[in-house]
Amino acid sequence: MAKLKFGLVGGGHGAFIGQVHRMAAELDGLAELVCGAFSAEPNRSRSAGMDIYHLPAARAYSSFSAMFAAEQQLPIGQRMDFVVIATPNHMHFPVAEEALRTGFHVMCDKPVTFSLEQALLLQKLIQHSGLSFGLTHNYTGYAMVREARELVRSGVLGAIRRVNCEYLQGWLARAEPQNKQAQWRTDPARAGVAGCFGDIGSHAENLVSFVTGLDIESLCADLSAFVDGRELDDDGNVLMRFRGGAKGVISASQIALGKENDLRLQIYGSAAALEWQQADANSLVVRFADKPAVVHRAGGIGTSATAMAATRLPAGHPEGYLEAFAQLYKDFCLTLRGDKSAGDFPTIVDGVRGMRFIEQVVASSNAGGQWLPFG
Amino acid sequence: MAKLKFGLVGGGHGAFIGQVHRMAAELDGLAELVCGAFSAEPNRSRSAGMDIYHLPAARAYSSFSAMFAAEQQLPIGQRMDFVVIATPNHMHFPVAEEALRTGFHVMCDKPVTFSLEQALLLQKLIQHSGLSFGLTHNYTGYAMVREARELVRSGVLGAIRRVNCEYLQGWLARAEPQNKQAQWRTDPARAGVAGCFGDIGSHAENLVSFVTGLDIESLCADLSAFVDGRELDDDGNVLMRFRGGAKGVISASQIALGKENDLRLQIYGSAAALEWQQADANSLVVRFADKPAVVHRAGGIGTSATAMAATRLPAGHPEGYLEAFAQLYKDFCLTLRGDKSAGDFPTIVDGVRGMRFIEQVVASSNAGGQWLPFG
Amino acid sequence: MAKLKFGLVGGGHGAFIGQVHRMAAELDGLAELVCGAFSAEPNRSRSAGMDIYHLPAARAYSSFSAMFAAEQQLPIGQRMDFVVIATPNHMHFPVAEEALRTGFHVMCDKPVTFSLEQALLLQKLIQHSGLSFGLTHNYTGYAMVREARELVRSGVLGAIRRVNCEYLQGWLARAEPQNKQAQWRTDPARAGVAGCFGDIGSHAENLVSFVTGLDIESLCADLSAFVDGRELDDDGNVLMRFRGGAKGVISASQIALGKENDLRLQIYGSAAALEWQQADANSLVVRFADKPAVVHRAGGIGTSATAMAATRLPAGHPEGYLEAFAQLYKDFCLTLRGDKSAGDFPTIVDGVRGMRFIEQVVASSNAGGQWLPFG
Amino acid sequence: MAKLKFGLVGGGHGAFIGQVHRMAAELDGLAELVCGAFSAEPNRSRSAGMDIYHLPAARAYSSFSAMFAAEQQLPIGQRMDFVVIATPNHMHFPVAEEALRTGFHVMCDKPVTFSLEQALLLQKLIQHSGLSFGLTHNYTGYAMVREARELVRSGVLGAIRRVNCEYLQGWLARAEPQNKQAQWRTDPARAGVAGCFGDIGSHAENLVSFVTGLDIESLCADLSAFVDGRELDDDGNVLMRFRGGAKGVISASQIALGKENDLRLQIYGSAAALEWQQADANSLVVRFADKPAVVHRAGGIGTSATAMAATRLPAGHPEGYLEAFAQLYKDFCLTLRGDKSAGDFPTIVDGVRGMRFIEQVVASSNAGGQWLPFG
Repeated sequence: MAKLKFGLVGGGHGAFIGQVHRMAAELDGLAELVCGAFSAEPNRSRSAGMDIYHLPAARAYSSFSAMFAAEQQLPIGQRMDFVVIATPNHMHFPVAEEALRTGFHVMCDKPVTFSLEQALLLQKLIQHSGLSFGLTHNYTGYAMVREARELVRSGVLGAIRRVNCEYLQGWLARAEPQNKQAQWRTDPARAGVAGCFGDIGSHAENLVSFVTGLDIESLCADLSAFVDGRELDDDGNVLMRFRGGAKGVISASQIALGKENDLRLQIYGSAAALEWQQADANSLVVRFADKPAVVHRAGGIGTSATAMAATRLPAGHPEGYLEAFAQLYKDFCLTLRGDKSAGDFPTIVDGVRGMRFIEQVVASSNAGGQWLPFG
Repeated sequence: MAKLKFGLVGGGHGAFIGQVHRMAAELDGLAELVCGAFSAEPNRSRSAGMDIYHLPAARAYSSFSAMFAAEQQLPIGQRMDFVVIATPNHMHFPVAEEALRTGFHVMCDKPVTFSLEQALLLQKLIQHSGLSFGLTHNYTGYAMVREARELVRSGVLGAIRRVNCEYLQGWLARAEPQNKQAQWRTDPARAGVAGCFGDIGSHAENLVSFVTGLDIESLCADLSAFVDGRELDDDGNVLMRFRGGAKGVISASQIALGKENDLRLQIYGSAAALEWQQADANSLVVRFADKPAVVHRAGGIGTSATAMAATRLPAGHPEGYLEAFAQLYKDFCLTLRGDKSAGDFPTIVDGVRGMRFIEQVVASSNAGGQWLPFG
Repeated sequence: MAKLKFGLVGGGHGAFIGQVHRMAAELDGLAELVCGAFSAEPNRSRSAGMDIYHLPAARAYSSFSAMFAAEQQLPIGQRMDFVVIATPNHMHFPVAEEALRTGFHVMCDKPVTFSLEQALLLQKLIQHSGLSFGLTHNYTGYAMVREARELVRSGVLGAIRRVNCEYLQGWLARAEPQNKQAQWRTDPARAGVAGCFGDIGSHAENLVSFVTGLDIESLCADLSAFVDGRELDDDGNVLMRFRGGAKGVISASQIALGKENDLRLQIYGSAAALEWQQADANSLVVRFADKPAVVHRAGGIGTSATAMAATRLPAGHPEGYLEAFAQLYKDFCLTLRGDKSAGDFPTIVDGVRGMRFIEQVVASSNAGGQWLPFG
Repeated sequence: MAKLKFGLVGGGHGAFIGQVHRMAAELDGLAELVCGAFSAEPNRSRSAGMDIYHLPAARAYSSFSAMFAAEQQLPIGQRMDFVVIATPNHMHFPVAEEALRTGFHVMCDKPVTFSLEQALLLQKLIQHSGLSFGLTHNYTGYAMVREARELVRSGVLGAIRRVNCEYLQGWLARAEPQNKQAQWRTDPARAGVAGCFGDIGSHAENLVSFVTGLDIESLCADLSAFVDGRELDDDGNVLMRFRGGAKGVISASQIALGKENDLRLQIYGSAAALEWQQADANSLVVRFADKPAVVHRAGGIGTSATAMAATRLPAGHPEGYLEAFAQLYKDFCLTLRGDKSAGDFPTIVDGVRGMRFIEQVVASSNAGGQWLPFG
């Protein structure tokens, strides 16, 4: 069975996430990059295709529209099967819309769109298209994050009471006028209504939802823009009340100086509790009321079949960010191939909920930190 | 110079904190326990004095009033110099009031009183008495907590932007009808308006204030009582806005299953950041914008004179909870002896602010999580 | 510039390291697997090629000899450029010998051969061939391991005095008759004179040599075979004296129950010291005589250009075992492409020294733990 | 029941361990310092007694002989019950000998004497005296070290196979001519035949013996003196073979730059394994063949009665070096009071074995690293 073929939109010179998508998508030998529209500027797209991705010039397209048009004409077996969208947020919708219209499955970076309105519209387009749409909330690909969800689902935690999710970065602690990654993330015209909460707060929300399965009932947010002249939030805290009585707090920041990419999740139930952090991604600590804490390990004895399926290496051979990211692509590709048992990747449902979260967080904060209903 | 002498109110059979006060007060060889009123029940007080504290029967008093009356009559050199109050919260004020009236200095467990009103009244009594009053927010005694404060004061952090303080315990995750410690802490008649936030949330507030020196401007709290039938909060999150623009969040819980006594503080400034946690109490991680993180160690090279003064052992010989607690007693005793350079212990000023915090947190939560001004 | 093409010998059903080589070699987009001889049994080779590696049947060869013969005939641009040897140890030499004879570069798993004699012979063959030969001591690919070497080279440590290297696994704590990986590693006919020290002790030696640049002068070893009936060592400790006066100890075990793959290196110099462990692979702790410890981080501020070149992701996005492994392939491929600045991969020189280490360790232990000269 | 009374020999100005003994002995309210001979120089002894220990001048004696003579004359209830010996090594025997002769129990710092010959002689004196003799190998006082021993005794580890004990310090990485602690420890006339191995290697041996109960059968040592002009070892590694087939290695160093006081113990059995380190003294990791690792915690659920008896505080309230040290005093004092269930402190048996270890380690190293029989 041949590898699936994909094209990439975005990921040109100076980008970070484009290469991540390429490495992640190809890691498990199920897919290969065959084309792309790497920049809105045709020459830069071509040079990126050749220099970064080692593609023939003909398949480094001058625009995503040109790519979809050309690939559509290629025979199956040559043309791309799906497109990866790794652009700034404002371009997600137009690219996805055109991909779906021209018959290509989509893997899209998060947040899914520029606005909730767009997300809802996209959801309809996807439903009508019959095509697959994945959203790269990549932290859900870690084996121990999936183990956490398994433990919640198994009931071992009892009723969930408290959730803490902290996602702290420091790279935007200062204005970063020369940093291409910083520019668009702090620009309302490209990022949307939120900065930090669009970029990483949305990951935190997704992680909480993925692991706990809880629905937010209402929330109260206090966002800040600490760097002078910054138009979007670079930091914030959100209190959450979940349906059923659990409480939670998300702290997200991009001005947490010295923090690199610290994502940490704690879930406390009536019978047991979980703690996971990306800095020790291959461990999951489980604590109990009646016995000492246990440390589950990726690939280790006693982990669930679900977690084992998201593990490539024996325990103690650390898997990291790329492997977690790759897991989503693996699940996406297996789904495209018709494997009904796969499919464990975030979809437009997560995307819509995520955009609602972003917009309600901003609305709450703009209202001075009022509690707003959610959903 | 002879040791200072002290009496203890509370700390009878089944108590935990009484022995802690005794060990902490005596550790540095500056004070010794000479008497006490260990229980409201005279026989139990006497047996505790003899069995637990190895005191002569005559100085295990039947009540704190009896103790103050008797000790007052003893000649200096025999009679106690100060009293330690280690009772449930509702007794702090009456004992302290009588101690001050009869001429004894006071070391009092936290929170300082049952209510803010009492705290304000006590503040006046202290001022009029000319006596010393210390409050055992013991976490401020850790060398690395003091180092953190020194670093903030030195300006190395720049302007503080974000503060996270997490204090999580799990021991009240269930109803604990047989646990004496649990009983009074969950009883509004003895604990006051708050449960978890009176007991440990107040420590978190004090720690934040101690290290940062920031003033809370307003706060928004969401408290919960997760255990059926519990009348006081056993969990909560508080958003804070500080004067000058910094933001913060305190998470405190006593239902965080499996968490023992996890106190963790993060402070992010415009130029550097700090992280400390009790589980690794002898380290302080300092992160910078422009260079790799540095780990300060209790007793280690490069720590401040202030931190060194709160260190008894060479680096790598772990000092723990008792040593931190003892540091407050050391500072208190040196102050009583007239050492003007000492005095680094929480006072009624912290007590009043702490009670205001407790009451505003409860008020905010009771109002559905509204923002309330502070101070 | 097109990707380099490679074939794989070994890596059939039930193998672990074959897929690792495939993922590592392909990660950076510089190479792609095009053929292989995955099993000594032709049908199993073919099915592995198709099922695991998604190759056309024609290029899943019935034997490595058949592969070299056929690939030699293919035009450049189609045929493989190099071969990856991922077989049990006894097959390394015959496969490598034939690869060199038929004009293919080689990447070979460790230890390089079955015996020192073979390694020396192979060294000559390589020299005469003019082809490139890499040895996958993959731990040298970690950015922070390379940072460690940079710090040693920079002189910041002063004169090295003490080296501790611990490599502990527990997966062979029992006889594992059903485990294909265990079978050949404990079989003298396939593994060579050493078990644990051939498999992982050799990694420890290589890591020490790579980071410190020190030459072993003499050594004293005490090996054990703890599992009943096991013919080769499954555990051992080796004392080392280095030229110039430094001392060291390597502890390696495959019966260290519960240890997964714990590799830990400590180097103490006269002016500074280093500590690295795979469980926290993206950190390197540097300790000094005169100031607090500093934590270097992969991708972090202040790391060397060499370490940055071995880093794909921003700091805080964990890179793991596969990425470190991939780094060797990246350096190998860049070398094949003529990049003179690359070439940072272990070679036959490491292989020969490693085999000498293995044989002297076994000889010392067999002599009751006598000190033997080295080199 | 009144507190036991003790005198201290050593512990004058500039000493470190004297105050440690005082704090440790007094912590649990069972003993109090009443006298001492703090320096060989009478005036300095007197000023130490008054300034450091707040004793009356009359009981700060001019010499240990004067102390024993005077205290012997005091009525029971006033006079000291036991003496604490906290001098350099060469004085342990003469002080202990005189204490026993004049009827005082002894708590002695380690190593027990200057030489094995002295230790054997002291053993006889103790036996004839009928008095109690404790040896402050203080690391055996940690609750989790005792838990480790309980787990070994329970059989949960199966047969022990491998033991690693690492005790690394860096404070003697340079000549320290001004440091009183360094002076005597590097002086053969006061320290004995060993430097690092007398000071901390002996702790490692004791810890291994305490937890495993194994007997060393033979050993092979390689010691170094890295600092120019140093007469005694400041670093070394020792291979051990235990009766019954287990193997072990002790690494000890005082030139491990940046290491503070890092003591780490790993024990691997056929069925489970243990890991403890002083830097995380309140945890004990237990690993198994068939299930995930478990973390035992001081004061935590599921710890043994023995460990609970060595715990003063609820889990999560860190106990450190002083508390572990105090545990030996607690056990010693309870024994003096006739509590037959106590007595869990190292004795002259440990002292004799420890001196034999020191002398054989030095002999092996002096013989070029030969294996020597032990015991």
